[in-house]
Amino acid sequence: MGKVYLVGAGPGAPDLLTLRAARILERANVVFHDALIHPDVLAIASRARIVAVGKRCGQISTDQRFINRCLVEAAARYEAVVRLKGGDPMVFGRAQEELDALAANGIDCEVVPGVTAALAAAAELKISLTRRGASRSVVLATPRIGTDQPVGEWANAAAAADTAVLYMGVGEARLLADVLKQAGVPGTHPVAIVQSASLPTARKLYTKLDDLPRRAAEMPPGGPTLLVLGEVLRQALSADQSRRQIPAELPATRASRA
Amino acid sequence: MGKVYLVGAGPGAPDLLTLRAARILERANVVFHDALIHPDVLAIASRARIVAVGKRCGQISTDQRFINRCLVEAAARYEAVVRLKGGDPMVFGRAQEELDALAANGIDCEVVPGVTAALAAAAELKISLTRRGASRSVVLATPRIGTDQPVGEWANAAAAADTAVLYMGVGEARLLADVLKQAGVPGTHPVAIVQSASLPTARKLYTKLDDLPRRAAEMPPGGPTLLVLGEVLRQALSADQSRRQIPAELPATRASRA
Repeated sequence: MGKVYLVGAGPGAPDLLTLRAARILERANVVFHDALIHPDVLAIASRARIVAVGKRCGQISTDQRFINRCLVEAAARYEAVVRLKGGDPMVFGRAQEELDALAANGIDCEVVPGVTAALAAAAELKISLTRRGASRSVVLATPRIGTDQPVGEWANAAAAADTAVLYMGVGEARLLADVLKQAGVPGTHPVAIVQSASLPTARKLYTKLDDLPRRAAEMPPGGPTLLVLGEVLRQALSADQSRRQIPAELPATRASRA
Repeated sequence: MGKVYLVGAGPGAPDLLTLRAARILERANVVFHDALIHPDVLAIASRARIVAVGKRCGQISTDQRFINRCLVEAAARYEAVVRLKGGDPMVFGRAQEELDALAANGIDCEVVPGVTAALAAAAELKISLTRRGASRSVVLATPRIGTDQPVGEWANAAAAADTAVLYMGVGEARLLADVLKQAGVPGTHPVAIVQSASLPTARKLYTKLDDLPRRAAEMPPGGPTLLVLGEVLRQALSADQSRRQIPAELPATRASRA
């Protein structure tokens, strides 16, 4: 009977993999991976059969029960089975269903933590999610939009924490902003949109909650996108607004000189 | 003028460093590090002068302004300056003060994210912090105990999120449990205490909020300790309680047989 490793692949950049994850991949016999795993990370698993099971992979069924069965069957055939997940396995990675299936079948399992996307977003912004005297709590949440509840529990959690990082939801920015305001977040609250954090294609912009729907529409479609909300962004938002006002004034100055 | 890298060293185990962090350490000229960084991580920086600036290091002043000044001065002398922090720099790492000092002096800076302790605790417990249908939000918070406020904002944030991970506070478990209950967390709420997550000396135990003060006292003093709270722990707590009841009943059964 083999062992299954639930491994975090980190936020996107292949060198944000941990040393432990790299060593396990090097000796893996089979790797079942999510969508959006960098090809350089998969290349480390040079001995392994590589199987894409992510929602966006499309190759094979991505039903969770199917993935669970794959892991259990692979553990019977191989010594080192890797389930490779984007970010960290224990944050929005649906790891529990797989852990339960492995435990139910008496299969040895190890979880290798990874850098979750919120941390890569903070690094991209160069803004700490916590700050002495200003932020003692950070919530990571996935918005649930379009359900019966007028205010989701996720929105209450986002409103109660000093800083919030929302995984997904930028495509529903108008509804998301409405729900957050119903939960008590002011329309002037600073927000950052961060796309493809840690990758060369990373993009970021600062706005306030009232302007989020308009500014989110400006962000071209691309990699995974997170929203960061909190007073820790206030200074960066102010600086950004100042910079954005300068080009709008320049042409008039030039015209009056001409 | 050199560049300063704010680097996350991860939760404790040296192989939970990222590949990027390891490569930067290999070519660092000087490393200013927190307490509790594993010696094997510091050993990677074989070319560098190593300077301990952590609160528990005691070697030199740990005043934040002093550390800021060290970084600014080092950037004038060296090409690659590393500020190495436990976990991730942007979560309870006081990174903002250093980032602001570097920006004020026009010094180029890069943040390298790391695995924050909450993720290592989840891996240690083998329990996902989120779960489909049960937990859509995780808050990371530092409790503030013994201030004027009867209920801290950190406790409201912890109560509002589905899962909470408290960095520090286990030494004040009675006050902490009281404040959480005032914030609306029920006394039956499942709690895990996780010490030295990711290290060979790791310890964990499950309890409920009402029993936290008593159980926290059972945990021997040791490495960094986190508290995890949430319904995601319910099944593990029940299983643990069943196991703990068996030894208490066995002697009676044996006695009656004898």
